Amino acid sequence: MANTKSIKKNTNGITVLLSDTIASVSAPDKQAWQKAQERLDSLTKPLGSLGRLEELAKQIASITGTLKPDLSKKLIIVMAADHGVVDEGVSAYPREVTPQMVYNFLAGGAGINVLAKHAGADVVVVDAGVATDLDTASLFSANKNENPFVKETPSKNKNLSGEEKQSTKSAETGISSAGIFKKAKVAYGTANMAKGPAMTREQACAAIETGISIVQKMVEKGYGIIGTGDMGIGNTTASSAIAACVCSTNVAAVTGYGTGLDDSGLAKKIDVIEKALNVNKPDPDNGLDVLSKVGGFEIGGIAGIILGCARFKTPVVIDGFISGAGALIAELLCPACRDYMIASHSSVEKGHKIMLEKLKLKPLFNFDMRLGEGTGAALGISIADAAIKVMNGMATFGEAGVSQKSE
Amino acid sequence: MANTKSIKKNTNGITVLLSDTIASVSAPDKQAWQKAQERLDSLTKPLGSLGRLEELAKQIASITGTLKPDLSKKLIIVMAADHGVVDEGVSAYPREVTPQMVYNFLAGGAGINVLAKHAGADVVVVDAGVATDLDTASLFSANKNENPFVKETPSKNKNLSGEEKQSTKSAETGISSAGIFKKAKVAYGTANMAKGPAMTREQACAAIETGISIVQKMVEKGYGIIGTGDMGIGNTTASSAIAACVCSTNVAAVTGYGTGLDDSGLAKKIDVIEKALNVNKPDPDNGLDVLSKVGGFEIGGIAGIILGCARFKTPVVIDGFISGAGALIAELLCPACRDYMIASHSSVEKGHKIMLEKLKLKPLFNFDMRLGEGTGAALGISIADAAIKVMNGMATFGEAGVSQKSE
Repeated sequence: MANTKSIKKNTNGITVLLSDTIASVSAPDKQAWQKAQERLDSLTKPLGSLGRLEELAKQIASITGTLKPDLSKKLIIVMAADHGVVDEGVSAYPREVTPQMVYNFLAGGAGINVLAKHAGADVVVVDAGVATDLDTASLFSANKNENPFVKETPSKNKNLSGEEKQSTKSAETGISSAGIFKKAKVAYGTANMAKGPAMTREQACAAIETGISIVQKMVEKGYGIIGTGDMGIGNTTASSAIAACVCSTNVAAVTGYGTGLDDSGLAKKIDVIEKALNVNKPDPDNGLDVLSKVGGFEIGGIAGIILGCARFKTPVVIDGFISGAGALIAELLCPACRDYMIASHSSVEKGHKIMLEKLKLKPLFNFDMRLGEGTGAALGISIADAAIKVMNGMATFGEAGVSQKSE
Repeated sequence: MANTKSIKKNTNGITVLLSDTIASVSAPDKQAWQKAQERLDSLTKPLGSLGRLEELAKQIASITGTLKPDLSKKLIIVMAADHGVVDEGVSAYPREVTPQMVYNFLAGGAGINVLAKHAGADVVVVDAGVATDLDTASLFSANKNENPFVKETPSKNKNLSGEEKQSTKSAETGISSAGIFKKAKVAYGTANMAKGPAMTREQACAAIETGISIVQKMVEKGYGIIGTGDMGIGNTTASSAIAACVCSTNVAAVTGYGTGLDDSGLAKKIDVIEKALNVNKPDPDNGLDVLSKVGGFEIGGIAGIILGCARFKTPVVIDGFISGAGALIAELLCPACRDYMIASHSSVEKGHKIMLEKLKLKPLFNFDMRLGEGTGAALGISIADAAIKVMNGMATFGEAGVSQKSE
């Protein structure tokens, strides 16, 4: 799936799965939206008095084409990858934290584990391009038969210079007590975007296709709502570069403190991003160009999750800043996918509001969060779930024998 | 409990339970707050990156005096009552909707039933002053032994003119499939505040004590977090009157469309509230005076819930506009109770923001809701629950072997 060798190109240089996906995205079902509106208006409450819960219920009805979508199986997909630009000193945390946090996700100790469990969501952790071989096998425990990824053949991985690495320690997939692991490593981290493109066009396609393929598998397994998540030291730098390019703003307006830079660190980060944009000159109207020049493998993976959800008519709950960068890429590739997105929260990270404005998305809440991992998406999934329960669980005026508004 | 005959007065005209409660409220535990801060800072996430979830965890730790409060039993208390001012034509819905919605709560068809269930919260519905005898007995199903209220003696009720009514159809308490019912009727609705005080000072105390006593019982039963809710046709009118008086604003600034008035209805509502304030001249520094002159029995009950939670060191999640009016009364009676309040949402109802500013509370979310019943509180309880799970469920840097921030 993420094996770049297997990717077939069509005439535009876009791979077949990606171009097929883009071509398959159709508008949500207006009739289901209308029926949801009628149902909501019949329930024992003043018209429209559940506000955004009602808006969410209608959106999900129109996405799924039914007033009774099965949201019992919920999923967070955490895309993990490394960034060559970390060499420039743009992050407060060292690069080794990326694999360490992948282990933490599989051991169940991270924020996303707690919040996904709270929301009743399962977690899939994807190695989309971590810079080391992950030694995950010791963490696997659960029944192989429950793993949607077991039947796949092992993949080989190329780094930017074309060198192939066959991983030895790293299992392709497995289930731990806390989540499903899926290896879909496009390469051992991106190249340093301050010096040239972060990845090849082929790798950008591979990252996106990883997301699409995983969504397809998980929708087949019965997951009814999917949230996006990320892990990757250095990925606020890539996301700010994408935001500055796609939203046509200056870099400082969309660049924040990430995991905890000080002011001089922030100034350096802004310089590095400006340099990367000058060196690479990404085309702001071309999602693949932006992703390959200043993006990341996990950001491409998130764009793929969103495109996959749009293709398979599944509501996708977008996390914060990094997921917002993925959403910008997805929307450039396929503007119609926007209707399938639910923005969970407004992040502390400075550029997030500008991203959401560009995407015309209104976040559900603002908890001053800036953790990533899908933590905001998990809380958003819980709210979406509540919205669908309201639409289907409340009594109508007729059923309850409650008098209607005086005219 | 709500039997006004049994109320003992102390020297200030405040009843003993109420004055004892006010005197018993102490400041939250600063040491627990500090320990919660240290615990949160040790977890595998950038410092402070879970924002308001971290603030909530610290607040709840300081309220309960422990980092591991047991929030497994959650509760919404819905206070229901009627308003004499409805005679002035201030509501879009007829008065009979109040008892109809009580039946709906006990049958499980209302918004609060769905959202409380979503949050894992039980529902107690209190008749604090519905204008009719409620015929609830046919809705009761579950085991009497699980009912915390069964051992109480029947109460008699007085209306404003001092006349006693002995209810025949209405059971004192019972458990339905969807909630626990508790009769604590102070009177058959308030008097019309446009013509004189809504209730006597004695009745105001009784309404508040209802809330305190129910909280005491439910805390004894193991409930660890409580949300406030309301039902009462006409109660946005009373709440706007309270807001205008206590927040020292003009009536129009805190008066909204309620359940769905048109513009001429709103103009009439503003006139009626202005009249009520002119006729009664409530003292904005005296919570009992404000409640008795322009309040409602459910608003007094909510003030009592808040005071009871502060006394019994239990976090109380405040719903929207009506609950905000209760919070204003509680805070006037006992400013220290403010630290125990968690504001769930910002309501569409116009005066709510002004109330929250007066209370110095920052709501968790704004979903454009205006249903009441405790629907916002239920969602807020779920978020508070998530915050405590984060504090106790995440791994520390040491446990997970994750590298800390570079210095």
